Amino acid sequence: MKIAVLPGDGIGTEIVAEAVKVLRALDLPFETEEALVGGAAYEAHGHPLPDATLKLAQEADAVLFGAVGDWKYDKLERALRPEQAILGLRKHLELFANFRPAICYEELTHASSLKPELVAGLDILIIRELTGDIYFGQPRGRRTSPDGPFAGQPEAFDTMRYSRPEIERIAHVAFQAARKRGKKVTSVDKANVLETFQFWKDVVTEVHAQYPDVELEHMYVDNAAMQLVKAPKKFDVLFTGNMFGDILSDEAAMLTGSIGMLPSASLNARGQGLYEPSHGSAPDIAGKGVANPLATILSAAMMLRFSLNQEAAAARIEAAVKSVLAQNLRTADIYSEGTTKVGTKEMGDAVVARL
Amino acid sequence: MKIAVLPGDGIGTEIVAEAVKVLRALDLPFETEEALVGGAAYEAHGHPLPDATLKLAQEADAVLFGAVGDWKYDKLERALRPEQAILGLRKHLELFANFRPAICYEELTHASSLKPELVAGLDILIIRELTGDIYFGQPRGRRTSPDGPFAGQPEAFDTMRYSRPEIERIAHVAFQAARKRGKKVTSVDKANVLETFQFWKDVVTEVHAQYPDVELEHMYVDNAAMQLVKAPKKFDVLFTGNMFGDILSDEAAMLTGSIGMLPSASLNARGQGLYEPSHGSAPDIAGKGVANPLATILSAAMMLRFSLNQEAAAARIEAAVKSVLAQNLRTADIYSEGTTKVGTKEMGDAVVARL
Ligand SMILES: CC(C)[C@H](C(=O)O)[C@@H](O)C(=O)O
Ligand SMILES: CC(C)[C@H](C(=O)O)[C@@H](O)C(=O)O
Repeated sequence: MKIAVLPGDGIGTEIVAEAVKVLRALDLPFETEEALVGGAAYEAHGHPLPDATLKLAQEADAVLFGAVGDWKYDKLERALRPEQAILGLRKHLELFANFRPAICYEELTHASSLKPELVAGLDILIIRELTGDIYFGQPRGRRTSPDGPFAGQPEAFDTMRYSRPEIERIAHVAFQAARKRGKKVTSVDKANVLETFQFWKDVVTEVHAQYPDVELEHMYVDNAAMQLVKAPKKFDVLFTGNMFGDILSDEAAMLTGSIGMLPSASLNARGQGLYEPSHGSAPDIAGKGVANPLATILSAAMMLRFSLNQEAAAARIEAAVKSVLAQNLRTADIYSEGTTKVGTKEMGDAVVARL
Repeated sequence: MKIAVLPGDGIGTEIVAEAVKVLRALDLPFETEEALVGGAAYEAHGHPLPDATLKLAQEADAVLFGAVGDWKYDKLERALRPEQAILGLRKHLELFANFRPAICYEELTHASSLKPELVAGLDILIIRELTGDIYFGQPRGRRTSPDGPFAGQPEAFDTMRYSRPEIERIAHVAFQAARKRGKKVTSVDKANVLETFQFWKDVVTEVHAQYPDVELEHMYVDNAAMQLVKAPKKFDVLFTGNMFGDILSDEAAMLTGSIGMLPSASLNARGQGLYEPSHGSAPDIAGKGVANPLATILSAAMMLRFSLNQEAAAARIEAAVKSVLAQNLRTADIYSEGTTKVGTKEMGDAVVARL
């Protein structure tokens, strides 16, 4: 088993180091190989996703990813910006299925912006399609407006697209995931306005015929954004396209109040996956040893489960994380009075100690 | 002054009747003319936006709109569904500037899902571009995928587009609105992924040069969805495109906990406007006399201010609404222990009495 380790920028190096430490403590037969990605790769090689990094990721069984990005690259042309690395990895590895759990840990309920009774015990799985939609749809660019009320004026445009097989495969992923949980899928669309999402709704409804044991509900994206705030616990599996999923998964993550705890997995049809925390590179606290490594450590657990077929080891990590929370250890982002504040390394060590 | 009154479906007729009652009590020189729209118009004339209704709206100084839609029209072909009426009115009247305040009334702070300290005193103005973007962009439809990894497969597609003049005019609206408030604009985009929104960001930055007294901040849409949950009071004017605005304005409205209180205005360059509550047609409670008419009554106040040049009358309505809240009158949606529950009509009467 081979793991490509791509720490990236900002707090990426610190949090990935802790996840690797935890993985090593399990004494499993895998090798790791590290490479630069994002701003760090741009500095060293002039590109956020150098060929060697992409090749390493493609040949590995799984990628453990930290985070990319920093304000200082904002002025670069888009193709060279750090975020292009993550978009490139998703596209080249065909990582179409993104799993983003939004879980509220009992000990951290108070950290949510929402009233405790609305989030206590929250456990939603957001499944976001990750290689299609307006993220990658061609054609796109700038041009002189060819028609309509502003014909002749400068304009920019993008294309939202979904083909039947793309919708089918992510729908199967969502229904199968729901079977292992609360058996309810909410498919989020904007069928009342968009052709793409009327088609999405139609195809999802068709695929659902193969899963009579799973309940399917359709919801407009604007309503989903509201229901997440109003009654998040009503969701089980929330599944949607790339663009809506970007917005709703971040909204849901923030609702829990502890985005520093939330892992994610992005899988392809061959079981290869990229695993990364749901939060970003947080350049403001980088290098200070205070970042929360738990989302990355939990991402490593997802990696063991989904790509490396090591369910027992995954469960050991998850239990160890629960145990350090029960021990009242907290990094700054989840700290509250009466708990013990620890740094990135101490938190990683504590997880290793509880394995 | 002529007001087109379009009550629409569901609770639309009940709440619009109360707003008209309040307008009449002001004794101003205007005439009203009522017409069918949405499902009601489809039942009577086979189309959700009959020519006569559109003509009435075009010739009026302002449109007072209730709400449209009902589950029972879900199976109709899209062009005949009630929502097409509102999209058609926006397009034909060129109502490009949508104002959606998200305000948390002191007496209703407890109704929010968020902890009271996060929403107490909340007062955000969301400005959403309303006639462009992927809502109306051509081409769109279904076809055989012409290229890419799924070439030859059935697909659906839509086009996101913004031209320079469309972005410029809404940016001016946002900066001018901010001047009258907290002097801060947050422009929400997805410039890291979309060509359209990199262009949006560039044009907004250019227009900003004419408003040196207003602070401009750029924020990605996924981050905006998070910041609204985390610290909504940090926003003053949040301004964005049609699609992102649809999602974020509903998220923000729900954050206040009292969407039944929130009005909206949609304006064109000639000062004509369409005024409607931020909530929908609520078919489940239609005809029961329990719907909250205050969002519609406050929409009528916005109409007096923006389209009919009657600032004093607008302020009178707003003061009357505050006063009925202070009197502890509540419709069911905002009811809490210790207050007096009233129906739609009683609430309208109470506002008239306090004028
Ligand atoms: C960095 C950015 C391109 C990316 C996205 O929009 O997908 C991020 O927001 C995410 O959700 O992983
Ligand atoms: C009914 C629908 C077409 C509409 C929209 O998406 O604009 C609604 O959600 C709104 O925000 O007014």
